[in-house]
Amino acid sequence: MNILVTLNSNYILPLKVMLWSLFFNNPNRYFHIYLMHSSISGEELDELQRYVAENGHELVEIKIHESYFEDAPLIMHYTKEMYYRLLAYKFLPANLDRILYLDPDILVINPIDELYNTDIDNYLYAAAYHDIPVKEINKIRLRAYDMEAYFNSGVLLMNLPLQRERINEEEIYAFVEKNRNRLIMPDQDILNALYCKEIKKLSEIKYNYDVRYYYYNKILSNGEINMEYIMCNTSILHFCGKRKPWQRNYSGKFHALYKHYEMLALQRRLKSQDIFSCSG
Amino acid sequence: MNILVTLNSNYILPLKVMLWSLFFNNPNRYFHIYLMHSSISGEELDELQRYVAENGHELVEIKIHESYFEDAPLIMHYTKEMYYRLLAYKFLPANLDRILYLDPDILVINPIDELYNTDIDNYLYAAAYHDIPVKEINKIRLRAYDMEAYFNSGVLLMNLPLQRERINEEEIYAFVEKNRNRLIMPDQDILNALYCKEIKKLSEIKYNYDVRYYYYNKILSNGEINMEYIMCNTSILHFCGKRKPWQRNYSGKFHALYKHYEMLALQRRLKSQDIFSCSG
Repeated sequence: MNILVTLNSNYILPLKVMLWSLFFNNPNRYFHIYLMHSSISGEELDELQRYVAENGHELVEIKIHESYFEDAPLIMHYTKEMYYRLLAYKFLPANLDRILYLDPDILVINPIDELYNTDIDNYLYAAAYHDIPVKEINKIRLRAYDMEAYFNSGVLLMNLPLQRERINEEEIYAFVEKNRNRLIMPDQDILNALYCKEIKKLSEIKYNYDVRYYYYNKILSNGEINMEYIMCNTSILHFCGKRKPWQRNYSGKFHALYKHYEMLALQRRLKSQDIFSCSG
Repeated sequence: MNILVTLNSNYILPLKVMLWSLFFNNPNRYFHIYLMHSSISGEELDELQRYVAENGHELVEIKIHESYFEDAPLIMHYTKEMYYRLLAYKFLPANLDRILYLDPDILVINPIDELYNTDIDNYLYAAAYHDIPVKEINKIRLRAYDMEAYFNSGVLLMNLPLQRERINEEEIYAFVEKNRNRLIMPDQDILNALYCKEIKKLSEIKYNYDVRYYYYNKILSNGEINMEYIMCNTSILHFCGKRKPWQRNYSGKFHALYKHYEMLALQRRLKSQDIFSCSG
């Protein structure tokens, strides 16, 4: 399976935790991790490459030269990395046909086969949208860009052949120029404004569970989406928002689980992909 | 390593979760699980034996005949099983020299080698005591029995040769007869009243962490015993109290972690003891 990550040095620890949880909960699968970056040092990269290899998988570097985005518009405090996941198709090997982008503030707690193999013929992407309870701010955005839905870009399955055909770099830059004063989360806003009609909707609960809204989801589902349900059905927990579980004063329903995975990720190497057999 | 568990049918699911967490977090160790019971059915036992074997370890049944405790005094709603962990030394193989008793409402999250190998020469047991924040009720008990400390009997390392020498079944029964109206948690009270001077004190934070008091412990330690500290230093989380994490309406700081392990315990078999190598 092909996984795409784009990040800078600040996210190396969370990336390791995310990757370890992905490997551990997807035994008998082999992963190619494509890391798009511009600023990670050679040493950090070597260490990360060793880390992935020692856990039985492969890390492929895709170094982006600063000069590539020379003419791309920049807004506010965002760096050119905001374009990486939108334009990844340009830098990935020409023979790849699909790849799953994952944010580093994610914990994978169940297999992702079904997600990875989602039928995305005729769609550029597959993604989940978080429509509760950030509804109000999303409504404002929906109106602003005349969109139908607001997708979260933290888990993004990509149809690379179709993207090579249909995505236009210049169109993206033009959109950013035109809307530079109203982009809040630039890459996510661009994705939604330009491509929301070509995004296949994924189950938010299964593949992009926003951990901030545990009680909200539980109440709204009349108790059905409780901890038991999540642990058996959710593949991807997403630690959205400003407060992150690797930070000192974090507190949240999935705090202990995250920190336990952090310990495992740093202390244990998976000797092979073949550590479990399925019960039942 | 020798592990002792004593339980009835109601605790088979939690037992599996506890054992799976023990196996998983103690790779490269082989466990003999001694199960003392009187009421588990043949079918349930077979299934449990298969479960332990499939995860790479051994379950040894120690069936206690109802008649054995015919003359032992019974109090309140407690069954004769209250004597099992105190008199286990009588039923275990004569060549065993140490065994670790574990309650089923436990999650093992780090290796237990150090605990298991604690020097207990000249002690009958090693145990932790929970002196915060149940201090007041403990003080009452301490006074009642003229004890020095109140140990929790959920994690109990046993010095079997010394127990065979010094523990007197009749003394235990006499104590129960005499105190039948003031025993609150009988086996734990007996242990403390009769043997507290011969119990080696273990670190509560490392080996018997009462999950109900996360914030209490954190504040009392000026933030030192936070989630990071627990995940790196605690080997045994103990879900003390009436509300249990496998019950539907449980809620607590370690809820997600417990339910994740429950899923793992039921869905994944550990193929070998040798799934990890140590990092670093």
